[in-house]
Amino acid sequence: MIIVLKQQAKKDDITRITEEVKKLGLKTSVVTGSEQTIIGLIGDTTIIDPKKFEVDEAVDHVMRVSEPYKLANREFHPLDTIVDVNGVKIGGGNICYIAGPCSVENKDQILEVARAVKKSGANILRGGAFKPRTSPYAFQGMGEDALNLLLEAKKETGLPICTELMDAEYIPLFNEKVDLVQIGARNMQNYSLLKKVGSEIKKPVLLKRGLSSTYEEWIMAAEYIMANGNPNVILCERGIRTFETYTRNTLDLQAIPVLKRLTHLPIIIDPSHAGGKWWLVESMSKASLVAGADGLMIEVHNDPEKALSDGPQSLRPDKYDILMQDLKKLESIIHHE
Amino acid sequence: MIIVLKQQAKKDDITRITEEVKKLGLKTSVVTGSEQTIIGLIGDTTIIDPKKFEVDEAVDHVMRVSEPYKLANREFHPLDTIVDVNGVKIGGGNICYIAGPCSVENKDQILEVARAVKKSGANILRGGAFKPRTSPYAFQGMGEDALNLLLEAKKETGLPICTELMDAEYIPLFNEKVDLVQIGARNMQNYSLLKKVGSEIKKPVLLKRGLSSTYEEWIMAAEYIMANGNPNVILCERGIRTFETYTRNTLDLQAIPVLKRLTHLPIIIDPSHAGGKWWLVESMSKASLVAGADGLMIEVHNDPEKALSDGPQSLRPDKYDILMQDLKKLESIIHHE
Amino acid sequence: MIIVLKQQAKKDDITRITEEVKKLGLKTSVVTGSEQTIIGLIGDTTIIDPKKFEVDEAVDHVMRVSEPYKLANREFHPLDTIVDVNGVKIGGGNICYIAGPCSVENKDQILEVARAVKKSGANILRGGAFKPRTSPYAFQGMGEDALNLLLEAKKETGLPICTELMDAEYIPLFNEKVDLVQIGARNMQNYSLLKKVGSEIKKPVLLKRGLSSTYEEWIMAAEYIMANGNPNVILCERGIRTFETYTRNTLDLQAIPVLKRLTHLPIIIDPSHAGGKWWLVESMSKASLVAGADGLMIEVHNDPEKALSDGPQSLRPDKYDILMQDLKKLESIIHHE
Amino acid sequence: MIIVLKQQAKKDDITRITEEVKKLGLKTSVVTGSEQTIIGLIGDTTIIDPKKFEVDEAVDHVMRVSEPYKLANREFHPLDTIVDVNGVKIGGGNICYIAGPCSVENKDQILEVARAVKKSGANILRGGAFKPRTSPYAFQGMGEDALNLLLEAKKETGLPICTELMDAEYIPLFNEKVDLVQIGARNMQNYSLLKKVGSEIKKPVLLKRGLSSTYEEWIMAAEYIMANGNPNVILCERGIRTFETYTRNTLDLQAIPVLKRLTHLPIIIDPSHAGGKWWLVESMSKASLVAGADGLMIEVHNDPEKALSDGPQSLRPDKYDILMQDLKKLESIIHHE
Repeated sequence: MIIVLKQQAKKDDITRITEEVKKLGLKTSVVTGSEQTIIGLIGDTTIIDPKKFEVDEAVDHVMRVSEPYKLANREFHPLDTIVDVNGVKIGGGNICYIAGPCSVENKDQILEVARAVKKSGANILRGGAFKPRTSPYAFQGMGEDALNLLLEAKKETGLPICTELMDAEYIPLFNEKVDLVQIGARNMQNYSLLKKVGSEIKKPVLLKRGLSSTYEEWIMAAEYIMANGNPNVILCERGIRTFETYTRNTLDLQAIPVLKRLTHLPIIIDPSHAGGKWWLVESMSKASLVAGADGLMIEVHNDPEKALSDGPQSLRPDKYDILMQDLKKLESIIHHE
Repeated sequence: MIIVLKQQAKKDDITRITEEVKKLGLKTSVVTGSEQTIIGLIGDTTIIDPKKFEVDEAVDHVMRVSEPYKLANREFHPLDTIVDVNGVKIGGGNICYIAGPCSVENKDQILEVARAVKKSGANILRGGAFKPRTSPYAFQGMGEDALNLLLEAKKETGLPICTELMDAEYIPLFNEKVDLVQIGARNMQNYSLLKKVGSEIKKPVLLKRGLSSTYEEWIMAAEYIMANGNPNVILCERGIRTFETYTRNTLDLQAIPVLKRLTHLPIIIDPSHAGGKWWLVESMSKASLVAGADGLMIEVHNDPEKALSDGPQSLRPDKYDILMQDLKKLESIIHHE
Repeated sequence: MIIVLKQQAKKDDITRITEEVKKLGLKTSVVTGSEQTIIGLIGDTTIIDPKKFEVDEAVDHVMRVSEPYKLANREFHPLDTIVDVNGVKIGGGNICYIAGPCSVENKDQILEVARAVKKSGANILRGGAFKPRTSPYAFQGMGEDALNLLLEAKKETGLPICTELMDAEYIPLFNEKVDLVQIGARNMQNYSLLKKVGSEIKKPVLLKRGLSSTYEEWIMAAEYIMANGNPNVILCERGIRTFETYTRNTLDLQAIPVLKRLTHLPIIIDPSHAGGKWWLVESMSKASLVAGADGLMIEVHNDPEKALSDGPQSLRPDKYDILMQDLKKLESIIHHE
Repeated sequence: MIIVLKQQAKKDDITRITEEVKKLGLKTSVVTGSEQTIIGLIGDTTIIDPKKFEVDEAVDHVMRVSEPYKLANREFHPLDTIVDVNGVKIGGGNICYIAGPCSVENKDQILEVARAVKKSGANILRGGAFKPRTSPYAFQGMGEDALNLLLEAKKETGLPICTELMDAEYIPLFNEKVDLVQIGARNMQNYSLLKKVGSEIKKPVLLKRGLSSTYEEWIMAAEYIMANGNPNVILCERGIRTFETYTRNTLDLQAIPVLKRLTHLPIIIDPSHAGGKWWLVESMSKASLVAGADGLMIEVHNDPEKALSDGPQSLRPDKYDILMQDLKKLESIIHHE
């Protein structure tokens, strides 16, 4: 961290600030420029709030020079983390295919979709039980009943299940029934939930990127979970908000190489929510795989016209099957390179 | 709501979609253009999910023509809502001045600030007890102890207290101790929390705008609270994220006249969080008042250099006092016009 | 186009607006909803400004239901446009590889890079002559001298050349010397330039997407060029501005399938400017190709440390060579599918 | 400027980079942290491109610690610049009221509006002659004929005239006929135009903020004009693009205090383009004045329903008159404080 002083700062100011820094257990080094003086902080600044110094009248601004996260930082953990979701490995070269409907709607639907995606090669089943909806008048999900239907589908197909946790109230239920606990984009900075997920959830966590979050904010959300006790975090890019309204969101595939450089956590892509249109899923899935993603989360529905949520972005099982064949081919090519 | 068909749509498509609409209890009217046909839906479409129709192969896209909110809509509730916070009225010409530190830090601090802002004319005391922080390593607030210190300050000054609720776990505590319950920007789309705040919180709610939220999303968050039983919602603009990084956020004062047109709820402004710099607070506070705001929420700290959070955006009590004198003058001019 | 009336609109309002529409040579169809009335406009509304009606007191808002562009619209021109750049075909399955330095700096540099990229399989040479720089104190390009050096490189390698036109003053020069005329992101809405490029430039045009432009605005910029006489437009996605600052911009690969659906023009990707880091180029190039791009524009520099502009995003020739081998393999796989 | 090295950087790296810096005529100071080493550059770094160092393998990233602009910088020019527009002073406490139609449409229109705004107290007349329009099919302005009509209005009312320059081709015409030359938002980074405006325009320049520009980019655009010879630049905030689509753009009033701190140039506000709705103009104009703006640019049209462009955001002369009375009162209150 460096403290940039105002041009009019005087010797006394430098002395005073230097003393403040020392009280925090850090050392300083002063660089006197032709126009501005900067004070460099030497030591672990992770826990220092830059605003502490910005309030000083002699300070122009404060800048971090290193990342504010430790546990998620590749620098201190060079090897890829491999997360194990009830036997399915993700990361370090292991690619996962998560598929299923946006919402669990009834037994026939979830069983039919589960069988289909299993047959096509998916290895984790997704299905929404508790749904975050913009309108209080929209379908809010079947809740606990949906979890039980997912368990039936798991029993038949053997696929571990993934679903979103919106409320800490249901943590015991999720610990009992769910294999991969999703934290949704709108809760990425719900710090109360993140803390409890870190300390109380015993399963791996799929952390979606917030709609307007930077990489650093996203990694800091993972750091919250990890610092509270759960190291098994998978990052999931699902599109960010931009000025473009033709697509639901804008998929940021640069996130794959960047996150792999900054962290050791697996990163997967959800092309269904990103674009909001089923006909974007094929090309974006292939692009994700080639760009190095550790997996894909794709919405599949046996009857999108009748879907209670997000029908337009769901693939029919036959289209998903063709896509999976292409993806498997692509995967084998990548691995042979 | 209107359904815009693709150019190649045929009579059969129109018939099929029209039938689907009728099943929802709505009527239709078909407009056949030279290039495109549109189907207008007649009836209450608030509860209809546009995506239901977008999934149809003959449909190009679906557009709402009216707002998806009812309870917060000025159209159905022409008079201003006046919210009563333990005797302090807000809205309908009643202006509130909320002031206090970002975080409650100790007894002396909160009492000193409370006395000062009371003397300057503030009528509600703010102070953070549970703090949403980007870093898990930053100060997270004093929790319940802070609520008790706020109550002491209330006892002495008579000021009702406002603080943020981050977790539904504390709803009983807030119902007992807090006068105005704040929902923070990062929880604006935490729908589980909004529902419980609607059904379980017995006090007025201050709903901050999400960092990247549109007016409609913000009003829909208010609608969540109202539809679940709590009609006493105050909207608080606190800056939105833009590409500008010199300021913490960009204050959107157009929100004042727009929200007053779209809804009947009071709207107040938080210039401290918006700019993130204390020297922006004066001009933005005055501008807010002149633009028609129903109140201001301003951070005041007796010793910003030692503040545990957000020092750089806090005014010292003497500066707040001068500002309040100016604001009171401005208020009297506005009322005489 | 549909005109949504306010709830309080009366018969007279409908009559008045209907008359106004008829004066424009269009027909109307009125849909009377339970809460709102809408007036549908029937006929070619491309040239109608929606604001013309929004100003009417009885009108709530006006919405387009069809695209405001004609010449670039896939609807009226179903086949892919294939652009011929001095013998190099782009679009309709023909993939182009544009490569070269950000700026032409001297004869040795441009010749060395040209030879290298030609050998690796590039078929168009890029090199900046006139450079748009944020600072007036930064290197602004070698100007016309750079064009002459590019011509020498073309003479030796046979590669057609591509460079940016910033000023209409140089149109005769570009018509004489350049094979593919680039319009930069910052000039995407420089309508004076677009008009002259349409009417006076006799070569194909590479139109970069503006930093914060929507697809529609981008296509409308192409429409400007086409409507003024030049149909040979290639679209180039180069990243858009988002809140993420770790990368220079955020690459939007969804643009590929979307633009191919909305228009018939070729679309290529510039991963170098998008990410601003050379180590992002490999994965994003492969992803672009797999997602269906018609080409790639990649910065290559023989000595990035000494580059006068954008060194950090430039590949060295040896890295470019390896990438091109991978891309060629990937291309052959895509074509065999 | 500071250069942050990678953790694995060695002594040789520091030596090499230090040598590079010295070649540029600057000194260095090395701060060795517990995890990272930084090299501080001492001297004038305005003309140094940070990317020059980022390309070095041992470098993690490079950060500026001081602003990259000189001529526009308040630091080196503490007094307010006062711009003289043909006798009308702007800045340093002098407030200007620019008003008139979006486009000049015919003689009667511009004369009628000019007389009205003059009577209400406006001191500069605006009117578009060359119009930047998103669609090539929209009205593009009357061009030179409009300038002549503006001159007639000036002759009758004595109001200096302000209109937008889109093309360097018309610089001689503008030098002859226009008093205040506007550079539009879409041309804020049209560097060719900025250079010529700096070196060839002999009148003051009104520089609008780009739709998605940061303060620094905006000031750098002013710096382009100033560095090329024209010091008379007025900055004009006209709303920035955000995710909100209800308003045309989001007005950023924090720009007023921030720009006044960073630069010595006058700053005025255009509330008409910002909101895109006439009923937002009143409150935003008052707010701007109270926040310290040096002037307001407001669209006034005698018959908005018939306006050829931007009718919905234009005030009728009677509404403008009432607003001006309020603004004059507010201005006198501000000056008495």
